[in-house]
Amino acid sequence: MSESDVGFKAAFDEAHQGAEEGGVPIGAALVSADGKLLGSGHNMRMQRGSATLHAEISALENAGRLPASVYHGATMYTTLSPCDMCTGACVMYKVKRVVIGENKNFLGGEEYLKSKGIEVVVLHNEELQTLMTKFINEHPEEWYEDIGEENH
Amino acid sequence: MSESDVGFKAAFDEAHQGAEEGGVPIGAALVSADGKLLGSGHNMRMQRGSATLHAEISALENAGRLPASVYHGATMYTTLSPCDMCTGACVMYKVKRVVIGENKNFLGGEEYLKSKGIEVVVLHNEELQTLMTKFINEHPEEWYEDIGEENH
Repeated sequence: MSESDVGFKAAFDEAHQGAEEGGVPIGAALVSADGKLLGSGHNMRMQRGSATLHAEISALENAGRLPASVYHGATMYTTLSPCDMCTGACVMYKVKRVVIGENKNFLGGEEYLKSKGIEVVVLHNEELQTLMTKFINEHPEEWYEDIGEENH
Repeated sequence: MSESDVGFKAAFDEAHQGAEEGGVPIGAALVSADGKLLGSGHNMRMQRGSATLHAEISALENAGRLPASVYHGATMYTTLSPCDMCTGACVMYKVKRVVIGENKNFLGGEEYLKSKGIEVVVLHNEELQTLMTKFINEHPEEWYEDIGEENH
């Protein structure tokens, strides 16, 4: 697992596309056991008024209907540590591995994923950290809304 | 919490609408602390080829963007015990309560919800049990796909 992976690149590009659109800059991509990109997506809260299209949910949705066996060998790449909803989606579909760009701006369900036997890799990518920190500083209301927290 | 609640009725009707459409017959509804229906929806796997629009996700999506405080007092009604993804969505948004039509056909993240301080009520509604059992018997492939399990 590294930053040269097709999945990481797709998630990274999705996060930047989200930023360009003025949205929450988080991207994700689902990659099959044999390295095929099954789907990618980014957070659509601001673009579509969506309360559920976090990056990982977008990637799963864009990948479409798949047999359970495809998820079981798959890797979910996400630019930011996954929230409880996206963690739960990875647990429900029993993906094999979750590769996370950074967890400095938000630490999600990494321990819960591990407790379910899912491999977790954190890349500590500084460019993604900077991208996310910038968004949170400029749009705190939207960021806290996105994770269901009140902005104190 | 009872079967006369506006939320239960909305979720129940959504499940039946899903059945009429030939889809996975699960419905959900989100109701505010003061009893207002914020949104409802049903599973859209078969209707839209969706891998993420489980009933609870549909209800959250149809409710649209809301401040965190609205979720915190809200109740999620769902006709079937929630899978890990939908459980995680309720945990992320910190809903106050989850009311479940039945858990005989599928037992989801009820204990996890309780561990996070969310009240869980199970109604053991026989009509919903029958509706779901009929679907599972007639469409085992779609049902197992919907919960990310291989059909053995």
